[in-house]
Order: sequence, then structure tokens, then C-alpha cells
Amino acid sequence: MQEELNRLKARLRRVYDLNAISRLLHWDQATYMPPGGAPARGRQLALIRQMAHREFTDPEIGRLLDALQPYAEELPPDHDDAALIRVTRYEYERATKVPEELVTTISAHLATAYQVWTRARPDNDFKLVQPYLERTLELSREVAMCFPGYDHIADPLIDAADRGMTVATLRPLFAQLREHLLPLVNAITAQEAPDDACLHAHYPAAEQLAFGEEVIRRFGYDFTRGRQDQTHHPFMTKFSVDDVRITTRVKEDDLSEALFSTLHEAGHALYEQGVNREYEGTPLARGASGGVHESQSRLWENVVGRSRPFWEFFYPRLQARFPQQLGTVPLETFYRAINKVERSLIRTDADEVTYNLHVMVRFELELELLEGTLEVRDLPEAWRARYEEYVGITPPDDRDGVLQDVHWYGGLIGGAFQSYTLGNIMSAQIFEAATRAHPEISDEIRQGTFSTLHAWLREQLYRHGAKFTPAEVLERATGQPLSVEPYVRYLRRKFGELYRLGSALTADG
Amino acid sequence: MQEELNRLKARLRRVYDLNAISRLLHWDQATYMPPGGAPARGRQLALIRQMAHREFTDPEIGRLLDALQPYAEELPPDHDDAALIRVTRYEYERATKVPEELVTTISAHLATAYQVWTRARPDNDFKLVQPYLERTLELSREVAMCFPGYDHIADPLIDAADRGMTVATLRPLFAQLREHLLPLVNAITAQEAPDDACLHAHYPAAEQLAFGEEVIRRFGYDFTRGRQDQTHHPFMTKFSVDDVRITTRVKEDDLSEALFSTLHEAGHALYEQGVNREYEGTPLARGASGGVHESQSRLWENVVGRSRPFWEFFYPRLQARFPQQLGTVPLETFYRAINKVERSLIRTDADEVTYNLHVMVRFELELELLEGTLEVRDLPEAWRARYEEYVGITPPDDRDGVLQDVHWYGGLIGGAFQSYTLGNIMSAQIFEAATRAHPEISDEIRQGTFSTLHAWLREQLYRHGAKFTPAEVLERATGQPLSVEPYVRYLRRKFGELYRLGSALTADG
Repeated sequence: MQEELNRLKARLRRVYDLNAISRLLHWDQATYMPPGGAPARGRQLALIRQMAHREFTDPEIGRLLDALQPYAEELPPDHDDAALIRVTRYEYERATKVPEELVTTISAHLATAYQVWTRARPDNDFKLVQPYLERTLELSREVAMCFPGYDHIADPLIDAADRGMTVATLRPLFAQLREHLLPLVNAITAQEAPDDACLHAHYPAAEQLAFGEEVIRRFGYDFTRGRQDQTHHPFMTKFSVDDVRITTRVKEDDLSEALFSTLHEAGHALYEQGVNREYEGTPLARGASGGVHESQSRLWENVVGRSRPFWEFFYPRLQARFPQQLGTVPLETFYRAINKVERSLIRTDADEVTYNLHVMVRFELELELLEGTLEVRDLPEAWRARYEEYVGITPPDDRDGVLQDVHWYGGLIGGAFQSYTLGNIMSAQIFEAATRAHPEISDEIRQGTFSTLHAWLREQLYRHGAKFTPAEVLERATGQPLSVEPYVRYLRRKFGELYRLGSALTADG
Repeated sequence: MQEELNRLKARLRRVYDLNAISRLLHWDQATYMPPGGAPARGRQLALIRQMAHREFTDPEIGRLLDALQPYAEELPPDHDDAALIRVTRYEYERATKVPEELVTTISAHLATAYQVWTRARPDNDFKLVQPYLERTLELSREVAMCFPGYDHIADPLIDAADRGMTVATLRPLFAQLREHLLPLVNAITAQEAPDDACLHAHYPAAEQLAFGEEVIRRFGYDFTRGRQDQTHHPFMTKFSVDDVRITTRVKEDDLSEALFSTLHEAGHALYEQGVNREYEGTPLARGASGGVHESQSRLWENVVGRSRPFWEFFYPRLQARFPQQLGTVPLETFYRAINKVERSLIRTDADEVTYNLHVMVRFELELELLEGTLEVRDLPEAWRARYEEYVGITPPDDRDGVLQDVHWYGGLIGGAFQSYTLGNIMSAQIFEAATRAHPEISDEIRQGTFSTLHAWLREQLYRHGAKFTPAEVLERATGQPLSVEPYVRYLRRKFGELYRLGSALTADG
């Protein structure tokens, strides 16, 4: 069996490396590539992705998996080899069920749809992109139908990002969360909004970047195995377990922009830098799911990075870097500014309390599109109505409405948005488990130390990579299945204190 | 035939893109990759290079070339299709004659040899690297022997870089040049050396880079299709005709380091940016040879960039950027400093007059190694003796002697060094032809304008890419075969004036 296993690993390593190379092509495109490089880069990305897909769907991988199945079945399920064979089979079956022709058609279509969207959005012209979105919907359904046996047509798309999740589990979960969020939003927005003017002085870019890097170095992000660059949209990417890079975006008139995106992407990167080095070159060498990944970006960005103990340590340091801008601004003012809750239009700018309502609008609309109960042409109107209902605000145009996110224009419809809210929910559940195990974590954060938290996360979560399913990894780490309770508790406590809300709202839910 | 031609082009484009991708992997490794990324990067580079080699040596390419041969023979030889088929066949035959196993053996061996050299050089320990160099010599001979029918065993290796050149043509050419150079060096070094202290004030890096970029922008280097970054060793690289990047190295106590390497690499880049866009994705889309490429780096670096008219324009600009360092230094002092001739140890730091003597030492030694008339163990001693004879100086150790260049340790022995001197010779011949056609070029340079020169080079040289052989492209551009005369004239005139040499030395040779 050892020989088959080695042959499988050698093939998987090629696929892994080709995927890593395609990510480098994309990283360079987003960071340093001169504009002239775009046409050739598109060609080169398509070539490498096609090669990676072909290498992974080669029938020889199926044969090796079949040959290894008896071996896997004899092992305890949490043996690394068993997990490797199990996870590879899952991925292999997903990859081989979608015909290569459909994969190629989708790639070409989405490249065009994305280009059209980049023109449609600034022009506020949904009509321009509507036929492309209709085709994307068709193609998304076709992909879903490659996985017969689902209860809801969105399930296979959701499963690709958040394995084990279905519409049947997510709808009630999100409804339950919404029940808690709506009264909280209402109570908060009934008050006068905090003044966040202090975030909008002039903050020179280099000093902003230096501060963000000081913070994430303390988190434990290893700059000998990563780096940060600037891009239009921040992201995390990985070329190997020892080369995990992040990017950020700086606005000199908005201190929160670069800082919180740096913390967010560093959360993703800490996860990837923490994966067991033995898994390098295999499908185990990455986070467990979209949701679990997002739980780590949100944990470091919000649960840690927007907390009071965190700023008790870092605010004097931030003031020292920006004495003119912040020297006379009290900690409390700053803390309230970075936690300002408001009914707003843009998901990526939304605060912790309203954020999930933005996600729910999208999640429900894409389910309705896939079900056929909503037509693409009616989407802008449905978007406005749902925003009014959930967020309590109506977008004045499609630019900041249905055209705001790239997801449906550069990717399939379905399976993209649920991870954000799952991540938020899990972030609190995981942090609660960490502080239950190590009550000193809060005090450490107050001293700018994150080693206990980081070590616990590495041990419980990061090192396992994709070895376990999201449900397994969450239950192993927290001792409990997925639950909105810790998240609701977290929000009520934090924002109850911040906004001095009555006990009816802040009693543990 | 059109169908076969299209199929050939589609396959060549894949090879071209894989090679471009491998260059991006290398560029990132040299510029931004964190240290932790090295092991995976080595793996990824090896994978992509192997894939590119396999794609190019696929027998289907041979079959397509055979099928297209009658079509090619009916076309005039300078028809693009004829050139494409001709050049591809030449490259294909070279690539298929070396067994894949030997290619793999060499890659693995050189990776190790290079690593050993990086330790041997600082330790001044030739013995450490000697067995690796012996193996490299063996492998270099094996490669040469894949091309039976040569007169000298170095010929196939030289041909790979400078097609059409042989030991039989190079030895007399270099001997002739040496006859001219030795008395010139003697006459110059008999004088008191110019004072170059003005180059060694403190020059902040950012301002140095900005000046270099100002210059090459005026040369015509297109920053929308390229960029400059910093690396340990400067280089030019290309990911497509519209993405041609350069790198430089800055020393804050040596103004000439970054500046002239920027000009040098920009020369290479102007060549690649100027190739006919129709050739993109084919073996025609690159410079004609190592020597012709070097002629362009040296033309822009030296013939233009170290000339008096150039500095009449740029020196006041340089002074404005560095008023404290250069405000009181006269142009003449600066001009003499950047053209200081001296017997020195390091090839890459050598001046225009002695540079080729450094090259000749290496060229002759590698011929003797390949012939078997020199043993690797005797190489350090032979190096010292030849330096004494040609350059008139003996290296005090091997670090600055036989261990100084990466070429023999990271590549084969043979075929690497002749391009430098060929480039120098051609740079003068080509510049002379340009000024013959456009006598106003000198005056334009004096005004910081390079458009006539650049346009002439593009028209005569750059746009053709690798369509013609080096001999053909040189004769087309200059109307003459390769000759040392223009180069000797150039050196005598320039350095005769600088050092006020007598007419015996400066009369046109």
C-alpha cells in the first residue's frame, strides 16, 4: 500500500503545486503586474488552471484511491492517511462530476461577466450585466445538477464551500440569528450614533502599514513565512505552508480600512501558517471550510481586534504613531468609533451587529434565484425590498445595491455568502471555548500578548487543516455543535455595554 | 497548411507561457518571496520547467514541423511563417537531442553545485566546490556530445547562446581585440588614475532609483509594460511582450551601482519590449542571441549612458537631486569618475577598456577545461596566471578569483562568457550604423532625447526578435559582418580624449 500511497501523494503534490502557481500568477496580477501584462496573464492563468484540473481528474488518481480504500478502512478514522484518502476522494468525486467542458464554459463566461460588471457597476447599469447574470444562473444550476440527490438545488454549491451545510440547516439557523439581531439593531440605532470623526483625519500610509504589521506580528503571523502587500481588494493567498501572504488596502482618510483588513487577512493567514507541515502538498493542507476560515479572520479582526482589552494595550501605541491625529482623543471615543453600529449600504463596511443582515439578504436572494421563484430581471427590486426589511435602509441605486459585490459576477450564484455568517457565528463559539480553557486570555490580550490564544487555536484547529469536516473540527475544538448562542451572547455583552442597553436585550439568549 | 500552422502555434504558445510562468516563479523568488517559501518554490520551478520541456519536445511538434516543411520552403526566407518554422525546428532539434534524463540530472546537479558555491565563495574554499565543478565539466561534455559533428567540443555550447559562432571564429576575433586592448590599457594605467570619490558619498536609495527611472523613461522603456524592483543580482525578465521587467541593486555609498545596472537592464528590456507583437507566444519573440542582447544592454549602459553628451544633459539633473553630494563637483570630474580605467579583479565592476580582458580569461579557461588540457584542480592557479597576463593583476584569493562568477557553478561550463565580449563589439558597430543613418543622434542625446536612436534600433533590430540569425540581423542593421574595428575606434576615440593619449594609440585601427 505504501507504494500506491506514495504515488498518490506525488500526483497530489503536482496538483497542489500547480494550484499554488496559479495563485502566484493571481497574486502578481493584483500586486505588481504592469497593466500591459493583463492579456498574457489571463492566458497563463487559464493554462495553469486547466493543467491543475486535468492532473487532479486523471483517472489514475481514482484508481489509486480505489486501491487504497481497503487500507483506509482498516485505519482509525483520525489517522492522517485515512483522512488523506477520505478527503481526496471527496474532492476527486466533486471534481470529476463536473464535465471538463462545463468547467471551461464557466471559466470563459465568468471572465466575460466579470469584465462587464466592472463597467456596469460604476455606470449603475444593471441591465448591461443582466443577460450575463442570467447565463451565470443557468450555469450554476447546471453545476448543481451534476450532484444529484440533493434536497435543495443550492445544497451542492453550499457543500463545496461549507461541507455538510444545507439550506435545510442554514435557513432556520439564520432565522434564529435574525430574531436576535433585529431588536438589537433597533435598540442601538434608536440612540445617537457615536462620533467616528477621529478615524478620518489624515493618516499617512506607511505609518498605518507599520502599525498593522506590528499588531499581526504580535498575533503570531510569521513574516519569514509571509508578507503583506497592497491590492485593490485585500486577500490572503498561499503558495506553500511556509509562504502565506496577505494584502491590504490603505485609505489615508480612513484609519480603519487598512488596519482591520490587515487583522482580518492575518486571521486567515494564521490558520494556513498553522497547518501541520506534514500535510504540505496534499488536499489536507488548507482550512476546513469557508466558514471555519472566516471564523478565524473574524476572530482576530473583531473578537480580538475590536475589543476593549486589545485597545487598552494598543491605543497608546497607536497614539504614539499618530500624536497629532489621536493625541487628544480618549480611548473611549476611539473604541466607540471603531464599533459604531449603523444601518448602512455596503456589506464590507458594515459593523458587527448589522453585518449578518447584509449576508442574509444575499443568501436568501440567491436561494430564490436558484429555486426559480425570483427572476434575474426582478433582482434589483427584490434587493431593495429585502434591504428595507432586514437592514432598514433602501439603496438609492444599484451600484450600491445589487451590483456591489463581485461574487455573482465573477463566480457562480450560490454557495458564496453563507460562509461569512457561519464564520461570525463560529468565531464567538471558538473564542468562548478558548477562554473557557484559558481564562487568562483576556488579561494577556490586555498586555498585547496572544501566545496562549494562538497556541490553543493552533492545537485545536489550525494544525488539523482540512483533515476533519467543519462540524467535526468545531465540535472537537469547542465540545459543542454549531450554535448561535455564543455569538448572540458575545454581541449582547459587547454592544450592551457599549450602548448601555437594558437587560431585556442583553440577558444571555 | 493553415490548420497545421495554427496547431503548431497553439502548442508553442503553451510552451511559451509555461516558460513565462517559470520566469515569474523566479522573479518572485528574487524580489519578494519570504525566506520560508524557498523549498516549495524549488519544487514548483522544477515542475514547471519539466512541463515546459515535455511540451516542447512532444513528438507532435516534430510531426507538425515536418508537415509544414514544404510550405516553409515555398515561402521567401524572410516571411514570418518561414522564419517561425525554421527557428522552431532549430530549437526543437536542440531540445530533443539532449535526453530528458540528462536534462533532469543536470538540473539536480546544478541546484546542488550552486548551493555549495554559495558557501564556498565566502569561505574562499575552492576545494569544497571542486568535485562539483568536475561533475559539471563531465555533464557539459555530455551535452556537447549530443551534437556530433562539431569541430571543437565547446561549439555546441557556444551555438546555444550565440548561434553560428564557433571557437574557430571567436579565438582569432578575441585575439585581434586583445592586441588592440593591451597597449591601450598600458597607456592609460601608466597615468594617474582619476579620482572617483564623488561617486562614494552617501546617496539615499529612493532618490537613486527615481533618477535611474527618469533616465530609462526617456530612453523609451515603457513602465505600463514593465517595472523595476530590487534584487541581489540585477536582471531582466519577460512574461510577455507587454510585461518586461528589470531589477537593480542599490548601494548607498556607490552611485554607479544602481544607475548603470538600471541602464544595462533597461537596454535588454528595450529590446524585448520592441519585438513585433505578432511573434508573441512563439520562439521568435525574444532577442536574436546572447551577444546581440548584450549589445543592447551595453549600448544603452555604456555607449550612451557613459558618454559625454548624455551627461551634458543629465548631470545638472543629477546634481539637482543630490546637491550636497555633487553640487560642487564639476561635470568633468564626474565624467572621468564614471569612466575610470583600472586593473581590477571583478568582471562586473570592470571599466569598458579592461572588461573584455576579464571575459577572455574565462573564455580561454573554459575551452581548455572542455578540451581536457586543463584540469579542474589546476583551475585556480591557471586563473591567477591568466589574470596576471591579461589584466595585469593577480587575485589575492579564490573568492575574488575563480569563485567570483556564478556561471560555472549554476550552469554548464562553456557557452556563457563569449556573449559579453560579442555584445561589446556589436554595441559599437550598431551605434556607429545608427549615427551614420542619423547623424543628429549625438545632438539629441545632448538634449536628453533618444527617440531617433530608439526608433532606429526598433526598426533595424528589436522588432525582428529571433527571426534572423545573429549574423543576419547584424548585417541587416549595419550593412557589415561582425567586426572589431568600430569597437576599437570607439574605445580609442573616447578614452584617447579622456586620457589625452598620443595619436599612435588613437588613430583609427
